[in-house]
Amino acid sequence: MSGEKLSRRPVTRVTGRSRETIEDAVAVEGALEMRIEGRALAVTLRTPGEDEDLVRGFLASEGLIRSRADLAALQLVSADCTDQPDVANVRLAPGVPLDWSKLERHFAATAACGLCGRAHLESLRAGLDPVASGARFAGEALLGLPDRLRAAQATFQATGGLHAAAWCEGKALEVQVLREDVGRHNAVDKIAGWLIGRERYPANGGVLWVSGRAGAEIVLKAARARFPVLAAVGAPSSLAVDLAEAAQMTLIGFLREGRMNVYTGVERVEGAS
Amino acid sequence: MSGEKLSRRPVTRVTGRSRETIEDAVAVEGALEMRIEGRALAVTLRTPGEDEDLVRGFLASEGLIRSRADLAALQLVSADCTDQPDVANVRLAPGVPLDWSKLERHFAATAACGLCGRAHLESLRAGLDPVASGARFAGEALLGLPDRLRAAQATFQATGGLHAAAWCEGKALEVQVLREDVGRHNAVDKIAGWLIGRERYPANGGVLWVSGRAGAEIVLKAARARFPVLAAVGAPSSLAVDLAEAAQMTLIGFLREGRMNVYTGVERVEGAS
Repeated sequence: MSGEKLSRRPVTRVTGRSRETIEDAVAVEGALEMRIEGRALAVTLRTPGEDEDLVRGFLASEGLIRSRADLAALQLVSADCTDQPDVANVRLAPGVPLDWSKLERHFAATAACGLCGRAHLESLRAGLDPVASGARFAGEALLGLPDRLRAAQATFQATGGLHAAAWCEGKALEVQVLREDVGRHNAVDKIAGWLIGRERYPANGGVLWVSGRAGAEIVLKAARARFPVLAAVGAPSSLAVDLAEAAQMTLIGFLREGRMNVYTGVERVEGAS
Repeated sequence: MSGEKLSRRPVTRVTGRSRETIEDAVAVEGALEMRIEGRALAVTLRTPGEDEDLVRGFLASEGLIRSRADLAALQLVSADCTDQPDVANVRLAPGVPLDWSKLERHFAATAACGLCGRAHLESLRAGLDPVASGARFAGEALLGLPDRLRAAQATFQATGGLHAAAWCEGKALEVQVLREDVGRHNAVDKIAGWLIGRERYPANGGVLWVSGRAGAEIVLKAARARFPVLAAVGAPSSLAVDLAEAAQMTLIGFLREGRMNVYTGVERVEGAS
């Protein structure tokens, strides 16, 4: 794990009996402004690193691009002249539609990352194409995911401060890519962006795993990227369950310690009669 | 805890040896659109309940109102004719400034809840007034918070699906108000809104406790509400530490199991030599 994702800070550790000053590693959080043709689209607070993936995945999650070819240029710069990029300049390929007035309405109507103004369940549902994948996964392979992922999650173990997302594929559900970020949506966008960079987006297969809870916004991003299975370490919300059902996705919660709860699409989970 | 915050869903519980269908309680998540003078300002995904507090706190966190008197009307309605409100209609009091063109730039420039377009650390810092409170708190009272809060956190224990925030005050740091929500920012906004409803905003005292991690956005909301101490169960980010320092707040992380890490403002924590 590269050093730029961790920062060391002095900290006073207090218990009922003692007080000592030590150095602690904290996860780095920094702002990244995304601009299209020089105009600000969004600012996100993210863990630096894999910024190209983050931008590609964000643009795809918002429906602005569908493939790598839709991007003519993606350049990371440091507007404040540090060595850490804080601006991503994007140019779309000729012919890729971009309606700023629609985008403004879109962002103006929301303060919830990823929801983007689609206020009501029915309109949320209406925007979802069902994930048609007939993929099946062995219950044993799913139950074994936490052990395989734990080893890969280096920064979290150092700081306890990051969300993680991973894409796992194949019979044994091997970890293809894992990303960590202070923002849970960013970690998922980085996975989508990784797929775009390899021209494998939308995924149409495999399992998207997330370290935290599964809320509606994560389900919307997963449905857009066509992951047939979303598996979360934490709990889903009611709206997450409703949207996963509408998208014909398999939604798994509480995947830990050798068990899991399957909320929708249990037919994709085989074995473990 | 009222029933509308929980919803029961069928779920297949899978282990390595068994598969059974049971009913599980999930946290309710629903969209709430906030409108000022009939015009959409923001949509948030939240746990229903205490919606007035959520709206008041959100408006205050965004700097649109400073007190209850700045609101002429706040009405919750159900646009889709269910029994759950999904729209909050707000009218500001005469004389309270509202610049839509500024607001549009504000929201258009961000996809990160609470950051609102202030992209760079320096501009983030510049927007922070120091929290001048000279309040001091006993280390023992802080270390005892988790036990006192655990009992109060009812829905979380039922679903594992909610973030919580609480405001604690007095020598013994008693829990004055605790709110739970699927969104961590919402839980903090509900605390701010509760204070506004009682004409105690900004707080200028006490401890804001949050169940998860402390990111930059939570510190910004806490600084705006003038809580001298922000205490989180989880880890802070680097930007959270930097902003807490700039705001002269006390930032505590990993407050659990009889210990805590004090990242900034340790002079407010007394005892436990």
